[in-house]
Amino acid sequence: MPEHAPEQQPLVVVPDADGAAALASAGVRTAVVAPEDVVPEQARSARALVVGPAESPAEVEAALAQVAQLPDLQLLVSLGQGSEQWGDLREGVGIATARGAHGGSTAEWVLTAVLAQLRLVPELLDAQREHRWEGRQARTLLRSRVLVLGAGDLGENVRARLLPFGASVTVAARTARDGVVSMEVARELLGTTDVLVVVLPLTDDTRHVVDAELLAALPDGALVVNAGRGPLVDTSALLAELQGGRLQAALDVTDPEPLPADHPLWDAPGLLLTPHVAGNTEGSGERAWSQAAEQVAAFARGQRPPNQVR
Amino acid sequence: MPEHAPEQQPLVVVPDADGAAALASAGVRTAVVAPEDVVPEQARSARALVVGPAESPAEVEAALAQVAQLPDLQLLVSLGQGSEQWGDLREGVGIATARGAHGGSTAEWVLTAVLAQLRLVPELLDAQREHRWEGRQARTLLRSRVLVLGAGDLGENVRARLLPFGASVTVAARTARDGVVSMEVARELLGTTDVLVVVLPLTDDTRHVVDAELLAALPDGALVVNAGRGPLVDTSALLAELQGGRLQAALDVTDPEPLPADHPLWDAPGLLLTPHVAGNTEGSGERAWSQAAEQVAAFARGQRPPNQVR
Repeated sequence: MPEHAPEQQPLVVVPDADGAAALASAGVRTAVVAPEDVVPEQARSARALVVGPAESPAEVEAALAQVAQLPDLQLLVSLGQGSEQWGDLREGVGIATARGAHGGSTAEWVLTAVLAQLRLVPELLDAQREHRWEGRQARTLLRSRVLVLGAGDLGENVRARLLPFGASVTVAARTARDGVVSMEVARELLGTTDVLVVVLPLTDDTRHVVDAELLAALPDGALVVNAGRGPLVDTSALLAELQGGRLQAALDVTDPEPLPADHPLWDAPGLLLTPHVAGNTEGSGERAWSQAAEQVAAFARGQRPPNQVR
Repeated sequence: MPEHAPEQQPLVVVPDADGAAALASAGVRTAVVAPEDVVPEQARSARALVVGPAESPAEVEAALAQVAQLPDLQLLVSLGQGSEQWGDLREGVGIATARGAHGGSTAEWVLTAVLAQLRLVPELLDAQREHRWEGRQARTLLRSRVLVLGAGDLGENVRARLLPFGASVTVAARTARDGVVSMEVARELLGTTDVLVVVLPLTDDTRHVVDAELLAALPDGALVVNAGRGPLVDTSALLAELQGGRLQAALDVTDPEPLPADHPLWDAPGLLLTPHVAGNTEGSGERAWSQAAEQVAAFARGQRPPNQVR
């Protein structure tokens, strides 16, 4: 329940009317300001700002331009999953994400990509196009060994969807805990890994965590899946393995991103490449706003938003 | 444990040496006779015969020709899932299948096909081929309503794999039981079904169970998946709905099968078509022989084989 009388409720800048509607019960007043617009005088006292997923540099720049016009700002709420793009945000402003809104959808993309690759969907679609009734024996998740790097909301969502297929799933994170092994233990498992799924957050520690050395430790035919951030994988090292025909991959994120039309990765053999669509499914906007409303409501009550990352 | 001294163990005809090896602990003697060969004199006293999945008329005919040469035959064991092709088998010969060996692999195909269609894999592969970084919002299993017609090993395997995706799953069979609704109740759910999965056995009752009337009851955009037998679906009725753009489909089995190269189904919009590969994954041969060995061992002990269907 809101603690403030309506005129005392904190003011929150949102990018559109749908956002204002989503915050109707969050105990705040809202001002709608489009991301590219100058913040009008009457909205400059805003103490919170909700922005989109900000997955392109232009979007991040637009958001930071709004922040510069909000001297009382205490909280930036993103409708996206990550927070690594906010390094230039000024001191004193907290960041909360829509973590939890996208994990199910992105985990579903991981399963889609893994199954499409193991079960030969690209070559079966080619056969269909050519009217050929021809299939060959496919690989299967049954009794396969899957290593998931990243034990957050997304990693656990991936694990839960893999288990009923009869896969043996190991989840790894920087720090071991119940049901989660350390990255050091994970490295020892690489030689017996059929499918490697990368869903780590991007930090200085995790940039290029999938490098030439890690890839070389995987067995022939292993499948590498990146549904985290492009720079988690050393693109050149992966490209070399794909062009050599030793590994397969499925990527929803790339480095650089978007991938330029003349980049050799597009045509790498054994690669399924999708344009950062893993989180973009029907209802994802509503799910993200529902998460944002939770963050804003906690802030209005004077509590720490559950998804605050700084 | 075998009940008979070696020389008294029942003789079983198998199609290859791998099969003989698979039955090494089943308490029987084996004779290897290739499916197309005449049964030699010393194998004519066989009381059981193991044959392949027999999914083509030619294979069924070859098997029945062997049966005609085995006057003492009591049991035919198939390495496949279905039994509807054995209508011409002579009276007095029981049939056991490798049910259980293929359910996991086929259920995995169902999830592969459903996810590929909902998550737009065919159009994303086209975009990749053309180096276009372009995606649109996809559908998702999250909060979708899935109706599975068929509550056997395969239907339950499909249900178990769907649930962690947040889908609402209803499984139907001819007779309602705990966790399974009747076909009559299932028909009432068609109007709110996003994904219809057909994994029924083929019988006189189920032939064309998916006909024009059933398809018309599905909402616009629904996805129809057949991983059972081709004739469960009225091909003409489905083709009309696909060509009208109202429904989507994924088929691993067709009627006729194999699908002739000039059949219009190949190019139907919104269709993912695969050439009866759902059960064909690494290890599927071993899993089928393991099931066959269980049937034969029970027979050798004088018990009813667990997968006996007549």
